Amino acid sequence: MSIERYDIVIVGAGPVGLLLSTCLARWGYKIKHIDMRPVPTVTGRADGIQPRSLDLLRNMGLKRAIMANEPAKVYEVAFWDPAENSKGIHRTGTWASCPKFIDARYPFTTLLHQGLIERVFISDLEQNGVKIQRPWRITGFSSDGVDKHHPVEVSIAHVDGDKEETIRAKYLFSGEGARSFVREQLKVGITHKDPIAHVWGVMDGVVRTNFPDIKMKCTIHSDAGSIMVIPREANMVRLYIQVASSTDADWDPRKTATTDQVQATAKKILAPYWIEWDRVEWYSVYPIGQGIADRYTLDERVFMGGDCCHTHSPKAGQGMNTAFLDAQNLAWKIHHVESGFADRSILKSYESERKLIAENLLNFDAQYAKLFSQRQPSAGEVGPASKHPTGDEKVDENEFIKMFKASCEFTSGYGVAYNENIFNWSDSHPAKSPLFLSEKAGSTTQRPGRILSPATVTRVADANVVHLEQEIPLNGSYRIYLFAGKPSMTKKAVDDFATNLNKKGSFFSSYTRPDVSQLDYHEQHNPHSLFFTINTIFNAHRPDIEVRALLPELLARYFDHVYADDIWDQRVPNAKAAAHAKMGLSEDEGGVVIVRPDGYVGCAVKLVEGSGTVDALNDYFASFCTKSLGGGERAQL
Amino acid sequence: MSIERYDIVIVGAGPVGLLLSTCLARWGYKIKHIDMRPVPTVTGRADGIQPRSLDLLRNMGLKRAIMANEPAKVYEVAFWDPAENSKGIHRTGTWASCPKFIDARYPFTTLLHQGLIERVFISDLEQNGVKIQRPWRITGFSSDGVDKHHPVEVSIAHVDGDKEETIRAKYLFSGEGARSFVREQLKVGITHKDPIAHVWGVMDGVVRTNFPDIKMKCTIHSDAGSIMVIPREANMVRLYIQVASSTDADWDPRKTATTDQVQATAKKILAPYWIEWDRVEWYSVYPIGQGIADRYTLDERVFMGGDCCHTHSPKAGQGMNTAFLDAQNLAWKIHHVESGFADRSILKSYESERKLIAENLLNFDAQYAKLFSQRQPSAGEVGPASKHPTGDEKVDENEFIKMFKASCEFTSGYGVAYNENIFNWSDSHPAKSPLFLSEKAGSTTQRPGRILSPATVTRVADANVVHLEQEIPLNGSYRIYLFAGKPSMTKKAVDDFATNLNKKGSFFSSYTRPDVSQLDYHEQHNPHSLFFTINTIFNAHRPDIEVRALLPELLARYFDHVYADDIWDQRVPNAKAAAHAKMGLSEDEGGVVIVRPDGYVGCAVKLVEGSGTVDALNDYFASFCTKSLGGGERAQL
Repeated sequence: MSIERYDIVIVGAGPVGLLLSTCLARWGYKIKHIDMRPVPTVTGRADGIQPRSLDLLRNMGLKRAIMANEPAKVYEVAFWDPAENSKGIHRTGTWASCPKFIDARYPFTTLLHQGLIERVFISDLEQNGVKIQRPWRITGFSSDGVDKHHPVEVSIAHVDGDKEETIRAKYLFSGEGARSFVREQLKVGITHKDPIAHVWGVMDGVVRTNFPDIKMKCTIHSDAGSIMVIPREANMVRLYIQVASSTDADWDPRKTATTDQVQATAKKILAPYWIEWDRVEWYSVYPIGQGIADRYTLDERVFMGGDCCHTHSPKAGQGMNTAFLDAQNLAWKIHHVESGFADRSILKSYESERKLIAENLLNFDAQYAKLFSQRQPSAGEVGPASKHPTGDEKVDENEFIKMFKASCEFTSGYGVAYNENIFNWSDSHPAKSPLFLSEKAGSTTQRPGRILSPATVTRVADANVVHLEQEIPLNGSYRIYLFAGKPSMTKKAVDDFATNLNKKGSFFSSYTRPDVSQLDYHEQHNPHSLFFTINTIFNAHRPDIEVRALLPELLARYFDHVYADDIWDQRVPNAKAAAHAKMGLSEDEGGVVIVRPDGYVGCAVKLVEGSGTVDALNDYFASFCTKSLGGGERAQL
Repeated sequence: MSIERYDIVIVGAGPVGLLLSTCLARWGYKIKHIDMRPVPTVTGRADGIQPRSLDLLRNMGLKRAIMANEPAKVYEVAFWDPAENSKGIHRTGTWASCPKFIDARYPFTTLLHQGLIERVFISDLEQNGVKIQRPWRITGFSSDGVDKHHPVEVSIAHVDGDKEETIRAKYLFSGEGARSFVREQLKVGITHKDPIAHVWGVMDGVVRTNFPDIKMKCTIHSDAGSIMVIPREANMVRLYIQVASSTDADWDPRKTATTDQVQATAKKILAPYWIEWDRVEWYSVYPIGQGIADRYTLDERVFMGGDCCHTHSPKAGQGMNTAFLDAQNLAWKIHHVESGFADRSILKSYESERKLIAENLLNFDAQYAKLFSQRQPSAGEVGPASKHPTGDEKVDENEFIKMFKASCEFTSGYGVAYNENIFNWSDSHPAKSPLFLSEKAGSTTQRPGRILSPATVTRVADANVVHLEQEIPLNGSYRIYLFAGKPSMTKKAVDDFATNLNKKGSFFSSYTRPDVSQLDYHEQHNPHSLFFTINTIFNAHRPDIEVRALLPELLARYFDHVYADDIWDQRVPNAKAAAHAKMGLSEDEGGVVIVRPDGYVGCAVKLVEGSGTVDALNDYFASFCTKSLGGGERAQL
C-alpha cells in the first residue's frame, strides 16, 4: 500500500493551527490536521480578539460567526489604585482600549471563550472538506527528503496508542502550544527574555458585585495584591490574580492556590466593594515563564508557530492574536511557493518577520508584567509633590498607566511593523526605481511592512458604501490599489498602466491563471491571475464614473473593484478624496499601492504616463518571484 | 378527550405570520401555527427588506442571521429613459434609495429571497418550541364564545384531508395571503383603490450583460416598454416587466407571457446594451389588483394582516415590510391585553393604525404604478423648452423621478406615522398635563406615532458605543427614556422621578412583576415590571458618571441602561449632547420620552422637580391600562 501524501500536516487545533488550516484548505491544499484533545477547548484559555485580528477575521468572512456568540467588547480600560489612608481602592482614570489616534475599524477588544472561536474555524474547515483527526498526536517525523516532492515523513498515533499512521507531506507545522513535541525533537531552544517567572491564577465565573467597573477591563492594584478584570460573554468575568513571583522570598514555581483562596484574595483586593460568585466556570493556576523559540524553522519544511514559539503572560491579551498572525504570515508564503509564484527562499521570511514581532511582544510583556505585579503606591504615599521618585519602590504613580497608553498601538495589533525585506520595500530593496514613494520622502503615508490604512469608499457597480481594505478577501492574492486620481488628469497614465500590465513579461501577465479561458463570467477577484486583484479608486463622484468608458478593458474586467473616493472622513475633513488623502497620495494624480496578501503594505509607486509605474513593480516582484520579469536581469535575493 | 387550547392559532407562515408567532413565542404564549405549503418558500416572492424593517429585525436579534445570507444591498436607484433620436436608453440620473435627509442606521434596501428570511424566523421559533405544522390548512372557525377564555374554535386539516383537528384559542390570526379563507368566511370585502389592474411578469435569474447598472435598482423606460431591475443575492437579478394593463385596448387579466417572450422584451428595452441569461431561477406572471380589506378584524378575536389585508404592485418593495409592521403592531397589543396590563379595547387600534398605513401604501402604489407603466418621453421629445407639458401624454420628464424622491421616506419605512390616539399623545389626548412636550410647541422633535430618532451614546457600565434606540430588545416593554440632562442641574428632578415611580398607584409600581422577589441578579431589562424598561441618559462624559452615586436605587437597578451622551453626531455638529439635541430636548434639563414597545413614540414629558412628570405619565398610561393610577379618576377611552 502506498503511503498517503499531503501538502501539509498540521499538529494542534488551537488558533494558530486552525487559521493556517483554514487558509490552506480554502486555497485547495490537501491537509492532515490532528489534535491531541478529543474535543475543542471546553472552558478557559485565551479569549481576547484584538482590533487588528477582527479585521483579519472579517477579511476571512468569519467575523459574523464570531460575533453571533455575543462576545463582550472592551472599549476602555479602568485603572484602580490604593486609595489614600488605606481606604481600599479608587479609580485613578480610564483610557481607551484602542484610542482614536489608532485608525481602527473596530476600536475594541472582543472577548470570547476560545472554544467558541475554534468552532467557527472548524465549521469553516468542514465546508472545505477538512476534519480534525482527534484525539491523535504526533509520534515522530523526519525531513528526510526521500520523496523530493513530499520530503517530510510524519508518524501520528491515536492517543490511546491503538492506531498509527505514517504519512508524507511537503510541510509539517507544529501549533502544539508551549509543550511542543516537534520543537523538542528539533532541539530548538527557548530563550527567556525575562528571568522573572510568575504563577498566575485565572478564574472565569459569574459574579455579583457592586464594583462599578465589573464590565470593564480593569487593572487593580491594592495593598492586598493586584488583579486584572476582564469581562466575558454571557455575564462572565475573568479574573487574573498573581499567586507567586520568582522575586518572592519564598518563590516556588509549583505554588498553587485553591479557588477559595483566590476568591478570598479578590475580595480583599476589591474592598470596600463586595463580590460573590454565582458559579466558577473555569479555574487554573499555572506558572508562566517568558520564552521565545530560537528558531521557527530549521529547513523551511518543518515550521512552528503560536505558543510553541512564544510564551508570555496572558494579561495583554496577545497570545491568540499573535498566533493568528503567525499562521496568516506562513499561509500565503507557502501558497506562493507551492503555486509556483514565488521563490522557495521567501519561506525564510516567516521566521524573520514573525520572530521580531514575538520579541517585541516579550519585551512589552516583561515590562508590563513587572509593573503590573508591583504594588502601586497609594495617592497619599506619592502625593502631589513626589514627582521625582527617590527609589525603585517609589515609582511614579502613573508609570504603569503611561506604559499602557504608550502600548495601545502594539496591543491593538496595529503596531506590527515588519522590517524592510524583499516584500517590504525600502531604499535598500533591489528595486531601485525613482518612482517608489516613501513616507520618508513625504510622498505617501503608507509604510511597507505596516497595515494599509482603512478607507471608506463607494463601490461603483452597486453604489454600496464599503471598507476599501476589506474589498478583497484573504484569497492569497496581492492587492493592487490603483488610486487613479482625477479621471481627467490620469487618463493616459491609467491606460498606460493597463497596457504595460498586459505586456509579455510583466509581473501581471507572467502569472496568468491556467484556466483563464474557461473562467466563470462572474469571477470577481481573479479574472486574470490568482496572484493579483486590482482595485481602481477614482477621485470622482460615483455617478460620474462609467467603468467601461473610463477604464481600459483589462481594468474594467474588475468591474466590482472600481470605487469612487467620495465619502467624507472625519480624519481628513478637508480632503475632497478622503481615501487618496489618507494614503498620502495626490488627490489629482493618485498612485499605486501594492499590498501583500496579508494586508501589509509592500510598496507604493507613483502613477505616471509611460511604462515607469509597471517597470518599478516588475522590479519589485522580480526580487522574489520565480520568473524573470520586464525583460531585465533577475534581481538577486 | 378534552379539546386542546392555545393562546393563538396562526394560519400562514409567510412574513406576517412568522413575525407575529416569533414575538408571541418569545413572550411565552402557546401557539398553533399552520401553513398550507409543505416547506418554506423555495423560490421567488418578496425579497426587499427596507431600512426600517432592518431596524426591527436587529431589535429582534435576527439581523445577523439575515445578513449571513449575503444579501444584495441597494443604496441608489438609477433612472433610465428613452434616449434622443430613438437611440435606445440612457441614464437620466440616480438617487439615494434612502437619502441622507432620512436619519436611518441602515440607509439601504436589503434584497434576499423570501425563503431565506422565513428560515431565520423558523429557526428562532424552533428555539422557543414552536414548530410550523405543514402542510395543514384551516377548514373552519367560529368565534362562538362557548369558552369564555378561549372563545374561538378552529378546525384545521392536513391538505390531503386525512387528518383533522379541532382546537380552541383566544385568538385566530390569518396571515394567509391574498386568498384568505378567513377573510372570505368573515365576508370582509376588498375595496379597490385604483380601478386599473396590471399583469406583471417577474423573473429571477443569473445574467450576463454589459448594462452598467445591473447591480443597482433601476427603473427603465424605453420605447419598447418598461422594466425594473432589482439586484439579488448570489449574483442574481430580478426583472419586473409589465405584461398587460387594464388600460390596454386588448386588456385581458389572464394574458400571459413565456420566459422567452419576457427575455426578448427585456433585450429590446435594454438595447443598445446586451443581456443573456445563464439560468432562470424563478419566473411568474400574475395579475395584480390593488385592494384593501374593509376590516382587519370584526371582534378583536379573529385578526388578519399582511397580503390578506392589502395587495398592490410589488415594485416599491413594500409588501413584506408592511406585513412585518402589521404583525409587530398586533403582537404587543395582544400581549398587553393578555398579560393584564392594558384594557381589551386597545385591540381596536390594530385596525385603525395599520389600515391607515395600508391606505397610504395603496395611494402611493397607484400613483407609482401608473407613472411607471407610462412610456416616458425621450429627451428629444421633451427638450429643454418643454417645461410646460401641453397634455396628459406630455408629462414632465421628471414626474416619475420626482415622485420617487418624494416617496423615499415612505418607502424606507420611516414615513409610517400613526394618528393620534390613546397611545400617541396629542392635545386631544385624555392626559392633559401642561408638562407634555410637543413638536408643535417646539419643545421636542419627537412626534407621537413616529419612530424614535436614532442616537449613538456610550453605555456607562462597559463603555461600549451603542445605538440607543436598539438598547431594549423587542421584549413587549414600554421604553422609558429619561434624558437626564446635566447631573448637576437635574439631581433633584431625577430623584423625584424615581420617588414618584415608586409611589403606590403609579403606572410603574402598579404593574410590578409577580416574580420580582425571585429575579435573577443579572436581569437587565425588566427588574421591576415586565411592561417597562428604563434608560437614563446623562449629558456628561462616561467616566464622570458613577451610576450608584448619581442615581437613586430604582434607576441604578437598570445598571446596563445608563448612558453618557458624549458621542459627536454629524447631524447636530454643534451639540454637546447629541442625543438630547436630536430629541429636541434641553441639553441641560433633559426630558422623558415614552416609546411604545414597537419603537414608536408615545409621548414626551418635561423633567421637573416634584411629582409632575410622573403625574403626567400616570394620566397617559391610565388612558389604556387596566388599573386606576395616581389616585385619580380612570380616564375615559
